[in-house]
Amino acid sequence: MTLVACIGGGQLGRMLGLAGLPLGLRFRFLDPSPDAPAREVGSLVVGAFDDPAALARLADGADVVTYEFENVPVDAARPLAPLPPARALELGQDRLVEKELFRRLGIPTARFGSLDETGVPALVKSRRLGYDGKGQRRLDAPGDVGDDELAEEIVSFSRELSIVAVRGRDGETGFWPLAENVHRDGILRLSRAPAERAPQVDAERLATRLLDELGYVGVLALELFEAGDRLLANEYAPRVHNTGHWTIDGAVTSQFENHLRAIVGLPLGSTEALAPSVMINLIGGTPSPERLLRLPGAHLHLYGKEPRAGRKLGHVTLVGASDDTVAEAVDLVEAAGDG
Amino acid sequence: MTLVACIGGGQLGRMLGLAGLPLGLRFRFLDPSPDAPAREVGSLVVGAFDDPAALARLADGADVVTYEFENVPVDAARPLAPLPPARALELGQDRLVEKELFRRLGIPTARFGSLDETGVPALVKSRRLGYDGKGQRRLDAPGDVGDDELAEEIVSFSRELSIVAVRGRDGETGFWPLAENVHRDGILRLSRAPAERAPQVDAERLATRLLDELGYVGVLALELFEAGDRLLANEYAPRVHNTGHWTIDGAVTSQFENHLRAIVGLPLGSTEALAPSVMINLIGGTPSPERLLRLPGAHLHLYGKEPRAGRKLGHVTLVGASDDTVAEAVDLVEAAGDG
Repeated sequence: MTLVACIGGGQLGRMLGLAGLPLGLRFRFLDPSPDAPAREVGSLVVGAFDDPAALARLADGADVVTYEFENVPVDAARPLAPLPPARALELGQDRLVEKELFRRLGIPTARFGSLDETGVPALVKSRRLGYDGKGQRRLDAPGDVGDDELAEEIVSFSRELSIVAVRGRDGETGFWPLAENVHRDGILRLSRAPAERAPQVDAERLATRLLDELGYVGVLALELFEAGDRLLANEYAPRVHNTGHWTIDGAVTSQFENHLRAIVGLPLGSTEALAPSVMINLIGGTPSPERLLRLPGAHLHLYGKEPRAGRKLGHVTLVGASDDTVAEAVDLVEAAGDG
Repeated sequence: MTLVACIGGGQLGRMLGLAGLPLGLRFRFLDPSPDAPAREVGSLVVGAFDDPAALARLADGADVVTYEFENVPVDAARPLAPLPPARALELGQDRLVEKELFRRLGIPTARFGSLDETGVPALVKSRRLGYDGKGQRRLDAPGDVGDDELAEEIVSFSRELSIVAVRGRDGETGFWPLAENVHRDGILRLSRAPAERAPQVDAERLATRLLDELGYVGVLALELFEAGDRLLANEYAPRVHNTGHWTIDGAVTSQFENHLRAIVGLPLGSTEALAPSVMINLIGGTPSPERLLRLPGAHLHLYGKEPRAGRKLGHVTLVGASDDTVAEAVDLVEAAGDG
């Protein structure tokens, strides 16, 4: 019986467990919270992510170590030889290093660096530990950009897309259809996949460079801005990704199952979509399951978390649903949430 | 958080848990074995099914009690007011009573009762606790049939079908497409769904009579023989059913999810098939997951059980696969199993 150890026991860990138990995998999670959502699908080591004793307990007897968030302390993770490889964590944790990697690989981005390079207005982001829109400010006139910060050109883009990709131990790759994503207040609200008129081939080509360069194993998400006919990389996440949650119900193989297949050395499953899908995050509050599940094609995923403002409590995916049904679901979700 | 208590912690309980965690349900199982497959998706009370103390611990604080096998001691279950109702258990546990119920509801069966009624050759079955072909014998000449036995006409049928049905608390019903089933040595080997040229409407009509008569809530399977243009009921199972496992991967909503939706009072999900599916049981041994998962459309479900002759260790479902792929899967499964 293969034991998968996972740094982080949030909803991504939980969904990995749900996908992996049928494959005969067992799970152990490391999380600072005894209430971590993944506790219901495996055993839980409660401890800090950089606590050597906790990490040792996590990895003890495990066949493979993985992680479910991108801010895992690299020095703590590296000795465990995780998959995806620690280098994918490391390069992604510094926005400047990440963008330079994109540049080196010929993956287009908005201009970045100093204000000289970007001009104003620019977005100034902290280089490290920024997520969900935290750690960003807009600069409309020349001003200070610290050494721990990075300026980025503000690009007028028509939409935000993401490609979720997977690479196996043997180098086999798979790509789900692009998702089109809607954020508000820096938090993902909704993803539609397959995105209409999507530059699928271009996005796959860009993601492939990244996967190959990193010697990647597992699922990786690449966030992209579409600006006219240009496709600009924003950032990558070396893990299963919120914009890939639709694959649980809407694709032949989910991102969670394929991440696991990749890291334990099983062949990858088809990434084909079953039908057009819309994934809506439940943030801060959850609508009545009765009302949500009355909607045709609705699939509910709750994470077992206590409600709190701004917290992702679950998601609902509508597969093959009409625009009216999607609109109704959005209304229900927004009325219940804090969004 | 809704707590579902389940009598029995086998693979059916495990798959109920996997389907129910995303709905925000929690699970507690009662099983005599500390290694029960469902232990990975909920808490486990280890005890006998008729142990009042164990049953009390199982039901303590539960929002609903259900079961995953049909031989639950009725006297033990009834005080817990389970869903499906105890009466569905009770009537199904005695083959004679079950057949008389079919007769009363106008559900056609093979002739049954005494040898006078059936003639010879006949199949003589024990009235109680027979499953997977155990407790049956063939009588080619008149002979003794005990009070605890039942004779059944041997019908020459062209194929065995089953309909898996679900009924909600409010009487809403749903029916998955009929499955065509292949048994060997009294054990289900393979189900194909939707069955070709299936008498779907007729089967739904028969199942509806049963659901309504029993005031049923949850999933029920009705096994049928197709003999010419006649459809004869063999038996029903008041639970999720092996011939409905294909619905996890091959239908919009699985039998496990809809069973739970029904018993906790949520609206039912669509029972529509996504594509033609073939489910193959892994019995006594499991083929290499590497080889199985290389097959297009293959979904693997292992139950976390130690291999043992005749034991159902898992199943594989092929969705939208070619005949060649199915044949290859059958070969792999048979070579690995004790078939």
